[in-house]
Amino acid sequence: MRNFKFYNPTKMVFGKDTISSIGQHVSSYGITKVLLLYGKGSIFKNGVYDTVISSLKDNNIQYVEVTGVKANPVVSKVREAINIMRENDTEAIIAIGGGSVIDSAKAASAGFYYNGDVWDFFGKREEVKRALPIFTILTISATGSEMNSGGVITNEEEKKKWSFGSPLLYPVVSILDPSIQSSLPPIQTANGAIDALSHVFELYFGGTDKTDMMDELSEGIIRTIIKHTPILLKDPENYDSRSELAWCATLALNGINGTGRVGDWASHSIEHSVSVLNDIAHGSGLAIVMPAWMKYVQNKAVDKFARFGEKVFNITEGSKEEIGLQAIEKLREFYKSLGAPITLKESGVKKEEIDFIANNAAMLEPLGTLMPLYKEDITKILEIAFE
Amino acid sequence: MRNFKFYNPTKMVFGKDTISSIGQHVSSYGITKVLLLYGKGSIFKNGVYDTVISSLKDNNIQYVEVTGVKANPVVSKVREAINIMRENDTEAIIAIGGGSVIDSAKAASAGFYYNGDVWDFFGKREEVKRALPIFTILTISATGSEMNSGGVITNEEEKKKWSFGSPLLYPVVSILDPSIQSSLPPIQTANGAIDALSHVFELYFGGTDKTDMMDELSEGIIRTIIKHTPILLKDPENYDSRSELAWCATLALNGINGTGRVGDWASHSIEHSVSVLNDIAHGSGLAIVMPAWMKYVQNKAVDKFARFGEKVFNITEGSKEEIGLQAIEKLREFYKSLGAPITLKESGVKKEEIDFIANNAAMLEPLGTLMPLYKEDITKILEIAFE
Repeated sequence: MRNFKFYNPTKMVFGKDTISSIGQHVSSYGITKVLLLYGKGSIFKNGVYDTVISSLKDNNIQYVEVTGVKANPVVSKVREAINIMRENDTEAIIAIGGGSVIDSAKAASAGFYYNGDVWDFFGKREEVKRALPIFTILTISATGSEMNSGGVITNEEEKKKWSFGSPLLYPVVSILDPSIQSSLPPIQTANGAIDALSHVFELYFGGTDKTDMMDELSEGIIRTIIKHTPILLKDPENYDSRSELAWCATLALNGINGTGRVGDWASHSIEHSVSVLNDIAHGSGLAIVMPAWMKYVQNKAVDKFARFGEKVFNITEGSKEEIGLQAIEKLREFYKSLGAPITLKESGVKKEEIDFIANNAAMLEPLGTLMPLYKEDITKILEIAFE
Repeated sequence: MRNFKFYNPTKMVFGKDTISSIGQHVSSYGITKVLLLYGKGSIFKNGVYDTVISSLKDNNIQYVEVTGVKANPVVSKVREAINIMRENDTEAIIAIGGGSVIDSAKAASAGFYYNGDVWDFFGKREEVKRALPIFTILTISATGSEMNSGGVITNEEEKKKWSFGSPLLYPVVSILDPSIQSSLPPIQTANGAIDALSHVFELYFGGTDKTDMMDELSEGIIRTIIKHTPILLKDPENYDSRSELAWCATLALNGINGTGRVGDWASHSIEHSVSVLNDIAHGSGLAIVMPAWMKYVQNKAVDKFARFGEKVFNITEGSKEEIGLQAIEKLREFYKSLGAPITLKESGVKKEEIDFIANNAAMLEPLGTLMPLYKEDITKILEIAFE
């Protein structure tokens, strides 16, 4: 096992009817004025907004609002949030939404005390020295951002969808009530599940470290997501399945699942370049890119892909290579069954755009740890992903 | 899934050659004087003591020492530590050892600021209001105390081995170098593995909550421990297996594995009463008591015990009842193969002592959640455990 450090101080409050405790949690830190950050109007429809406002009022917490965070969140919105927070002397951020809103909150929280432009944390890898406390109310399980210290933001002018992170950016408290996810459109539930699975795959296939316990944990998360996501597409209000999927998505990327091994993350980088061009949902992008990456690198981890086939899809017939390839095909079929696109073509990408995407991804080359990828590798993966 | 809160701020520093960083960690919190708490002389033999002292000196940290913490740690030693700390104005505790030392450190840390007697936290369930920071260097993987907020201490006059806990008692930093466990006697490695397995069983069989993901995690921990412990008994220096067992023991009881469900803990209570009388190792006591408890309560969770048999021991033949009973028998055989006692008789308990043990355990009745146990149940379990 590889040496590691694990640290995750986020307080997770999980379960039914927990959102109304937000005011109390915020107040317990002596905070009296916050920024509310959210996306579209869905939190008005599902009652979350009203619950939060009422809880803040009960606890004498003032608030200002920034709304309109997009699915692939942009740095211009982060800058807007920073300005509003500075004008209003807010002491914390409450992010109400999914990964996009929480990642935007993390960037704004880091940018609040920083003299330069917030993109420096991404482009120049500037270190975060101080940050405002972040509270989150999760409305869609996918990215794990509610219980980790990283985020991904798009610089729309520079066409860069890049990540950043700092131990200062763990949310202080995250509230996760799975029942409010009942009203999500099926494709969003599916995309969330695919995103969470992809995080597990990045860690599971990231290298050659021997980590039995982490393989067990990963396979457990994968099997649980594969079991419960189809149930939710038929029965969106199934609370057991909502809570299983939600907790799996958090566990996939709260750090535990990464202990003792490295993550690959090449597929994520490639997907970021796909979605910076096409603005498709991150989960859908991963449904396309990750199996293509798997096919391309399978010969670098034949045993691991065979183990994946056996432990997740119960495939026992054939050589290790064959079992691995069958497993990748099974995974694509599963994604298709969820209603996700599984080719770039389906998702509207044109063949001639592959070069742009490959160049965009190659800005960070080499990508990945299992097999370091350069532009020509990335191009080949995109070709596999095309149709 | 049951509502839950998860919070665990301990920084875990895991891997080879990590112990020499202790001084730096302590110093980073502005701490200049500590209590070193440890047990017997093993840390002189394996070099841990010298590494710690040298690191403290390099970081200008003064220290006083309390030594002689026993395997079933006693409150009189905790009182001694509190007195020494008060006399010397220590600002933190460094616990070097296993669960006994860390649990003693937790009690001393809570007692330092408390006006009454430290046993009040156990006997009167007094709430911990303030505590000294605790740093740990783990020398045997078993209890998980290095990454949780609870502990068990014996009041030798009152013959009570009771637990306590507080969110203030999470160690600030825990250093876990699995390689130093190579020099443990085989039975201690085995007892540690049995203790860790027992923690998983308490959570896995604790109730009827449906928690697929947690069942997966539990089964993963169980399979990994069952795989790697026998390797260590033959090859104590196998680093891969040491690190797998070590991280499993931490994960078994750092809170994650308890999310969304309750733990039973009746077997632990009964074992505490066995070892308060006989001073046998906690792991050995659990090897005897837990399978007896399983036999007694199996009919309350037939499906779960059958699942256990299938997922852990690959037993597929027979009715669910039969699979469950076979699995319990397999577990006992496994414990026997590790060199652990599997009957009270073997461990030196006399039949006429069962009543004393049952009365001692029944002080806290009813025990458990899967099936609330009263004195007559406890007596029957002890009779099953006897031979």
